[in-house]
Amino acid sequence: MRWTVHGERTIYDSPWMDVRLADVELPDGRRFDHHLVRVRPAAGVAAVDGAGRVLLIWRHRFITGAWGWEIPGGRVEDGEDPAESAARELVEETGYRAGPLEHLLAVRPSPGLHDGIHHVYRADGAEKIGEPTDVEAERIEWVPLESVPELAARGEIGSGSTLSGLLFLYARSVSRG
Amino acid sequence: MRWTVHGERTIYDSPWMDVRLADVELPDGRRFDHHLVRVRPAAGVAAVDGAGRVLLIWRHRFITGAWGWEIPGGRVEDGEDPAESAARELVEETGYRAGPLEHLLAVRPSPGLHDGIHHVYRADGAEKIGEPTDVEAERIEWVPLESVPELAARGEIGSGSTLSGLLFLYARSVSRG
Repeated sequence: MRWTVHGERTIYDSPWMDVRLADVELPDGRRFDHHLVRVRPAAGVAAVDGAGRVLLIWRHRFITGAWGWEIPGGRVEDGEDPAESAARELVEETGYRAGPLEHLLAVRPSPGLHDGIHHVYRADGAEKIGEPTDVEAERIEWVPLESVPELAARGEIGSGSTLSGLLFLYARSVSRG
Repeated sequence: MRWTVHGERTIYDSPWMDVRLADVELPDGRRFDHHLVRVRPAAGVAAVDGAGRVLLIWRHRFITGAWGWEIPGGRVEDGEDPAESAARELVEETGYRAGPLEHLLAVRPSPGLHDGIHHVYRADGAEKIGEPTDVEAERIEWVPLESVPELAARGEIGSGSTLSGLLFLYARSVSRG
């Protein structure tokens, strides 16, 4: 059942996020203001090597105060295709250049809070071309894809988009035998 | 590498979300204001039946404009344990009462944007005790867990927390044979 949106007004506007109040009406007739945040799309990439390992960064997020494994990724900049953003972020955060990208998932991280979309790609044949230029990673490691469920169970992968992309790759690998 | 947070100020305050500006300094010395949103924790539950099917709701999100399968879930209210919230939301959104809950994952949906955490549980032995009181679901169905990777590939599961929880359950089921 769709909610009826009678209007939307901006509370706070910035190049990074817009905070809005939507005037929504539920199918049962209840009507109220609902907060939402509008943000730019993002893109990330799971680079997989010939040994079934994925290139991950171990990083701290000051917003959550948590450490965890994440795939490289970031915001889609003006004029970029999401695949270009994913490949660019891979170079900036790890120093690896991706081979051809395969689009895996379009993740909606928080569909009840913001309109962001995270495009998650797989890349094969990534090659080291230099050092990272970003300062996000504490460690950069090739992690066996088969260890992903255990890392998730241990709470070492927190990011919903990374969990989604890596568990999807794991599921596909085991279902293909 | 941790970023140094020199301070944080509120831009917008509400019972639903706080929008803040953090004064952060990167390890390379760059210093700038970083937006972030502080929200309440949320909890959801994947109820699984004896036939390996999971109880999902097919719903529309006005913020993203997208339809998709999601596990029942919602905000952790004052005084609630996340498991209580997950069980309550299951009843409200599907009319089913959960059996014992097992905590699967603590998902960080958007660690670069907000501090939300989504606790995802598994429940067995859910029983129908009435009709849904919430108006979120267009359809409520028992969906085979084995179909989750295909539904994800087709874009019919968008929510990062739902993808994480269901793909984690799928991965665990296949790795246990």
